[in-house]
Amino acid sequence: MSIAGKLLLGQDQIQGQESSFQAINPATNKETGPVYGSATSADVDRACALATEAFQSYRQTSAELRAHFLDTIAHHIEQLDDELVTIAGSETGLPAARIQGEKGRTIGQIKMFAEVVRSGLWQTPALDSALPDRQPLPRPDLRRSYVPLGPVAVFGASNFPLAFSVAGGDTLSALAAGAPVIAKAHNAHPGTSEIIGLAIQQAVKDCDLHPGVFSLLFDQGFEVAQQLVSHPVIKAVGFTGSQAGGEALMKHAAARPEPIPVFAEMGSTNPVYLLPEALKTKAGEFAEGYCASLTMGAGQFCTNPGLLIAIDSPELDALLDDIGQRLDEAEPQTMLTPGIFRNYAQKVDKLLSKNDMTVHTPCKSAIAPNQCHPMLFSVSSETFLNDKTLSEEVFGPSAVVVRCTDLEDMLHITRSLEGQLTVTLYCDENDHSMAKPLFQELELKAGRILFNGFPTGVEVCHTMVHGGPYPAASDSRTTSVGSSAIQRFLRPVCYQNIPEALLPPAIDSQNSLNLRRLQDGSYNDR
Amino acid sequence: MSIAGKLLLGQDQIQGQESSFQAINPATNKETGPVYGSATSADVDRACALATEAFQSYRQTSAELRAHFLDTIAHHIEQLDDELVTIAGSETGLPAARIQGEKGRTIGQIKMFAEVVRSGLWQTPALDSALPDRQPLPRPDLRRSYVPLGPVAVFGASNFPLAFSVAGGDTLSALAAGAPVIAKAHNAHPGTSEIIGLAIQQAVKDCDLHPGVFSLLFDQGFEVAQQLVSHPVIKAVGFTGSQAGGEALMKHAAARPEPIPVFAEMGSTNPVYLLPEALKTKAGEFAEGYCASLTMGAGQFCTNPGLLIAIDSPELDALLDDIGQRLDEAEPQTMLTPGIFRNYAQKVDKLLSKNDMTVHTPCKSAIAPNQCHPMLFSVSSETFLNDKTLSEEVFGPSAVVVRCTDLEDMLHITRSLEGQLTVTLYCDENDHSMAKPLFQELELKAGRILFNGFPTGVEVCHTMVHGGPYPAASDSRTTSVGSSAIQRFLRPVCYQNIPEALLPPAIDSQNSLNLRRLQDGSYNDR
Repeated sequence: MSIAGKLLLGQDQIQGQESSFQAINPATNKETGPVYGSATSADVDRACALATEAFQSYRQTSAELRAHFLDTIAHHIEQLDDELVTIAGSETGLPAARIQGEKGRTIGQIKMFAEVVRSGLWQTPALDSALPDRQPLPRPDLRRSYVPLGPVAVFGASNFPLAFSVAGGDTLSALAAGAPVIAKAHNAHPGTSEIIGLAIQQAVKDCDLHPGVFSLLFDQGFEVAQQLVSHPVIKAVGFTGSQAGGEALMKHAAARPEPIPVFAEMGSTNPVYLLPEALKTKAGEFAEGYCASLTMGAGQFCTNPGLLIAIDSPELDALLDDIGQRLDEAEPQTMLTPGIFRNYAQKVDKLLSKNDMTVHTPCKSAIAPNQCHPMLFSVSSETFLNDKTLSEEVFGPSAVVVRCTDLEDMLHITRSLEGQLTVTLYCDENDHSMAKPLFQELELKAGRILFNGFPTGVEVCHTMVHGGPYPAASDSRTTSVGSSAIQRFLRPVCYQNIPEALLPPAIDSQNSLNLRRLQDGSYNDR
Repeated sequence: MSIAGKLLLGQDQIQGQESSFQAINPATNKETGPVYGSATSADVDRACALATEAFQSYRQTSAELRAHFLDTIAHHIEQLDDELVTIAGSETGLPAARIQGEKGRTIGQIKMFAEVVRSGLWQTPALDSALPDRQPLPRPDLRRSYVPLGPVAVFGASNFPLAFSVAGGDTLSALAAGAPVIAKAHNAHPGTSEIIGLAIQQAVKDCDLHPGVFSLLFDQGFEVAQQLVSHPVIKAVGFTGSQAGGEALMKHAAARPEPIPVFAEMGSTNPVYLLPEALKTKAGEFAEGYCASLTMGAGQFCTNPGLLIAIDSPELDALLDDIGQRLDEAEPQTMLTPGIFRNYAQKVDKLLSKNDMTVHTPCKSAIAPNQCHPMLFSVSSETFLNDKTLSEEVFGPSAVVVRCTDLEDMLHITRSLEGQLTVTLYCDENDHSMAKPLFQELELKAGRILFNGFPTGVEVCHTMVHGGPYPAASDSRTTSVGSSAIQRFLRPVCYQNIPEALLPPAIDSQNSLNLRRLQDGSYNDR
């Protein structure tokens, strides 16, 4: 497989005829890779028509075939080696080891979805028996299974060119659910998107699926995104990115004659609460872990710990000196795109211009294109509460420390926070009486709560919740990482008195798929 | 308990100070019951403040206490006898037997939610064990449980003054999930709402819960609804009613700084497909069942079968003659409100004025206030496809028959349909080869598929899906009837390395609640 700057429309590879663009290598600010032509409106229509054609047959594929398809995608991505690392590295500025690691994570995630499909864990079929003699009226035979919503549009993230992009969790969970996918490549890494798209295209072919199961579109601007989200054929949207981007898609989706769900993961500031006893007993350990988490991947993670909340004290001053010094000594890192770097620099400048703000890191100029330096600021809780902009996410390795007066102040700050992907409590055992009331408030603020760790590093597993109350995610009842991500693209259907021959196999009377099912309110033992 | 025209704000009973109104007895067009004052903006704020205060303690009640609370509500409603029937009858025109039946259904539904809470069936706790030795990085201990979204605003339906109103499925599923509820009474039955609200208020007191767990507001207009849905404290909305009403709430909810989910069940036309062999062999049985379903409750059901789709034939003509005659002989029925009657009469007039339309029932004038007569129309499939208004719901006992040419035509009609609560296939065994391709399309169009039955009559059970693709419901992934209705008001939280003392009991290490849990990808046996 070799990239050629082509859209993937089903099994076809086509040059887009709208305005063209190239990737920028953020380390050099030079163009890199092939020229991509944006998809035309007709290309979008074609991808949508193909997805519709594919939907009926694809949604009814057996678990075994669907799982095999996912495994085949994993296999083809596994085969991509130096070329992938070279392309992804030149488009993102990410080091080779990170890309290799993310590739492994992506393959692991695909295999997990294959396993979940194979095991039937993605569904909870249910049956309520007919009660022909019930008074005053008999009860019919009722069963519940699931159908996919329909074709899904996926918009990948800039910061995970593999794990949250063309073959990332959104695409794979939709495919696992039985939904065709039309992916719109992120402009920051079109080559990476294309090579991964080719791997999926090949897997569709290998498994003899309808070509419309997967298409990949490129676009220099926002027209393709708007057309996709407004297209009557598209029934759901997966998105990872900025709040502005997610909200734009949500508006388009809500304005349709038939509104559709947008599952947007929009990031957050991921508050870390450092409690007083831990500050006394574990300051060094904390400083080291916090700096590593804050600067990991140049701070370009949704779960970057951009807010540190602690009770003011001389120990806190000492800690902030220590963190400031560690950050000062950290190597500068190339950010993903010139735009992301500019945005980081502007937000840091805005923080630097604030009154009542202490800066714990020196201001350094970039010595190479798009290189950022980590920043640490601190403010009083009063200043923080009075200035909403201080609680906004800064995408990059910058953090604001809120100096609280006491537990009540911390609780007050907590209640004022918007929804978060994660919140972290850093405690010593002697902090637990203080942790408890905080914990009760924090449960209502985030999708994931951590103790004595750092939020970067999102496990791909059954229990993961990568989401949270708005604006961390558009729908707090869902997760974009882990096996439950499949649920977003499914809806239940109730079958009443359906003849055996027409029933979906998941709810047939002999339980031919050997699934765990809810039978008259109790789970069967299989 | 006796109604007095008062708002219920927590444990207080207060006279609303905004514009006042009274219920109208639709059988007489006369006012009935006490005068209700609309809630002021301050009353709404007070209800919201109370709900917020109640949320932390209520969400953490034990399953036993919460289930006992629901059972206590059921008990107090069970005690209401003649007074309830008298009040509800005078406000809705519904016969006593229907109100008694709906009361039984409502109590049964409440007890089901109590049982679901008690059994733990509403949640699927999950645990992924720590893997301290995993390479390249250890895996932390991860667990998943659920928290309620927060206080819920409920807007009941006109057509089920008990089962889909103040103590209906939305209120009870939210209370079961651990969410306080602020109910806005439907103006058509304020007295019924108040007496039921008093039963819930008493149960809150009996169980020594925070008074803010439940409030009931009245309003002559839409101000209270707008304020509630826009209020930052409200985190979700349950609604049953018209598409226009649901969409208005959705717009308010989407325009908030923090958008919230609106679970709106907005009705549909519930197409019934009568296949050719069944038309030959079961015409009499079908005509009888169809007329009973169409006229039940004066056709004022969300699941009323307002669309009949069949292949044109002399047998179909004979059937429509038969149905027309049966409908002509049906007793006229009082509709729920003067507004609903006017709307029905207007929509029927609009259908009567169409070209290319056959009318199979005589046009009769009302002989008593708000009494409707059933109507049956038929059109060609071509006319139906060219006139979108023919597929709109008529709330009342009116149906449109679509005369198709063949199976392809039926499939074409099916693909053109909007989302439905239900679709029905009426078949003989010899129709099954035709039923199969239809079935595959129908699965994608509705929340419930029935065979050889009629859609009115919604079972309250685990498998029920009362919802469907838009515009049948605002979120097709949910149901407003049955045990799964609880899920709408919950979101998952992931707990990472949380000390045992702080873990919610559902995910503690000893499984002290004895719940079915997903442990490292497999269900425990308990």
